[in-house]
Amino acid sequence: MPRETHAAENSTNGVPRGIFAAALTPQKDDLAVDHEALLGHCHWLVERGCDGVCLFGTTGEAASFTVGERMTALDTLLEGGFPPERLLIGTGCCAIPDTVTLTKHAVKRGAAGVLVLPPYYFKGVSEEGIVDAHRRVIDDVGPAGLRFFLYHYPYMSGVSLSAGVIKALTDECPDTVVGIKDSSGDVENMRTICESFPQLNAFPGTETLLLDGLNMGAAGCISATINVTSRLAADIFARREADEAPVLQDRLTAIRETFDNYPLIEALKHMMAEHTGREAWRNVRPPIARLTRREGDRLAAELRALGFSIA
Amino acid sequence: MPRETHAAENSTNGVPRGIFAAALTPQKDDLAVDHEALLGHCHWLVERGCDGVCLFGTTGEAASFTVGERMTALDTLLEGGFPPERLLIGTGCCAIPDTVTLTKHAVKRGAAGVLVLPPYYFKGVSEEGIVDAHRRVIDDVGPAGLRFFLYHYPYMSGVSLSAGVIKALTDECPDTVVGIKDSSGDVENMRTICESFPQLNAFPGTETLLLDGLNMGAAGCISATINVTSRLAADIFARREADEAPVLQDRLTAIRETFDNYPLIEALKHMMAEHTGREAWRNVRPPIARLTRREGDRLAAELRALGFSIA
Repeated sequence: MPRETHAAENSTNGVPRGIFAAALTPQKDDLAVDHEALLGHCHWLVERGCDGVCLFGTTGEAASFTVGERMTALDTLLEGGFPPERLLIGTGCCAIPDTVTLTKHAVKRGAAGVLVLPPYYFKGVSEEGIVDAHRRVIDDVGPAGLRFFLYHYPYMSGVSLSAGVIKALTDECPDTVVGIKDSSGDVENMRTICESFPQLNAFPGTETLLLDGLNMGAAGCISATINVTSRLAADIFARREADEAPVLQDRLTAIRETFDNYPLIEALKHMMAEHTGREAWRNVRPPIARLTRREGDRLAAELRALGFSIA
Repeated sequence: MPRETHAAENSTNGVPRGIFAAALTPQKDDLAVDHEALLGHCHWLVERGCDGVCLFGTTGEAASFTVGERMTALDTLLEGGFPPERLLIGTGCCAIPDTVTLTKHAVKRGAAGVLVLPPYYFKGVSEEGIVDAHRRVIDDVGPAGLRFFLYHYPYMSGVSLSAGVIKALTDECPDTVVGIKDSSGDVENMRTICESFPQLNAFPGTETLLLDGLNMGAAGCISATINVTSRLAADIFARREADEAPVLQDRLTAIRETFDNYPLIEALKHMMAEHTGREAWRNVRPPIARLTRREGDRLAAELRALGFSIA
C-alpha cells in the first residue's frame, strides 16, 4: 500500500500536505452530479499520485450546486469507499448558516479538512466583517475535528484575506485554523504567507508555484490543473530536492500556462472528455459554458505540441 | 383606499411600476430574520408612499440568507397580510436549482415579480453562459405567473447584462422577461436600456436617476435608500411632470449622495435604529458590519444639515 505510506508521510497531526487536485465535478446531461463518475475520478487521481482531492472548490463548480447536492456528493463518495482522510471539502457559501451546515457535515464525515471561501457577494467589505464571518462559522461548528483552511482567491470571491485577517483568525483559533490556499497566483503573497504564518499548511492554488512554494515552506499545492497533471505534480513533490526538479517544474508550468489561455474548468473538462471518450465530461453548469469544438481542438493541439498527454 | 388606486394606476398587466424600496431585512440579535419587524417595515413603506417592496435584493442582504430562510420570510410576510401584488422577490442565487426553488415559490405565492440576479461567483463568463443561466431558470419554472425582472449590478455580481444578453432573453421570452433593474448607476446605460427595450419596465437602482429615468421612459425606481426616502421619492413619481419636480429631485439626490459616502445597508440600518429607537435595527450579517458609533453620528449630522429626517 505505497499510497498509504505516502499519505502518512505527508500529513502532520492529520493536517493535509502534498498534491491535491481541486476535483472537477462530472455531470450528467441534465447537469446533476454524476456520482459514479466523480467516485471514479477521485480514485483515479489518487492512483495517479494525488495525496488527496479537494471536493467542491472553485474548479468543482461548488457555487453552482445546492447545499443538499454538495452533501449528497460527499456521502456517495464515502459510501463508494473513498477515504475521508484524503478529502478537503469546500464549504464556504455566502450565507453563513449554509457554510455551517456544510462544514459540520464534512467534519462529521471525517474529512481531512474544510476549505472555506469567505462570503463572496458583497464587495468592499471591511476586515472586521471578513474576520467575523469566519469566526461565526468556527464558533458554530465547534473545534472538535475541525481543520479549517482559509481560501484566498480575491479575483473570484472579491474578498481579500489580508495578513491582518489571517493573523486575527490564527491568533484566535490557533488549533483550528491550520492552513490556507492562496489562489492569488502572486508569488510574493505566497512568500509573505509562508514567512508570516509558518504554522499554517499553505498551498498555492496553481502548480506554476509548486516548487517555489515548497522552497518557501508551502505544504504542497491544490490546483485545478492537477486533475490532468497529477503524475507530474506528484513527481515534483517527491523529488523536490533533486537536481531535476526545476526542469520538471518548467514542464509543469508550460502545461498550466497553456490551460490558462482558456476558461480553465471548461478546458479541463474538455481534455477529460478527450482522454476518456466520454462526451458527458464536457458538461458544466451555467454561467460557465463548454469550450467550442474549435477551442477544444486548438487546446489539444497546443498540449500535444508540448508532448503532454493525460494518459 | 387611495393606495390601491395608485397601485392599480402604476401597474400594466400586473407588471409592477412605481417606487419600490429594496427592503432592509431586520434581524434579531442572533441574526435570525425578525419577521415581525420585517412585516411592520414593509407595511410602513407602503403607508409612506411606496408602490411596493423588493424583498431580498442586495439591500435585503439576500445572499446572506439560506433558501429556507428566504422562503419562510416571504411566507410570514404574506401570512401577516402584506399584499403579494406589491412584492418583487429577489430570487437569484449562484446555484440554478436554488434560483428555481425560490422563483417557483414566489410565483406560487402570487408575487408581482421576481428580480433575478445572475449567478455571481464566476467572473469573466461568456454572454452565452449568462443567457443560458437565465434560460434554464425560466424553462424550469415555466411561464405561468412568472414576471421575470433582470438584475444588472456588475459591481456586486461581477456579471454584466449587455444589450446582447438582454436582447437574447427578451427575444426568447417576450411575455416572461418583463423588466430590468439597472444598478450600474450609469445614466447612459439606463438610456440605452430604455431606448433599446421600450417593452421592458426598467427601474434604475438609485433614486439619483429617478426623474431622469422617468423622462427616458423608466417605470419607476427600486432603491436601497427608498427605505428612508419613500415619501419624497413617491412625491417625485406623482409630480414628475410638475415644475417643481427637478427641485425635489435635487433634494433627493443630495440625500442619496450623503448615504453613498457610507456602507449603504449599514448606514440605512443605523438610521432606522435612530428613527425607531430599536437598537436591533443595526444588526447585519457578516461579511458586512455595523457602522461604528462615530460613523453613524457623522452620517446623522450630515443628514440633519440637509434638513432630512425619516419621520
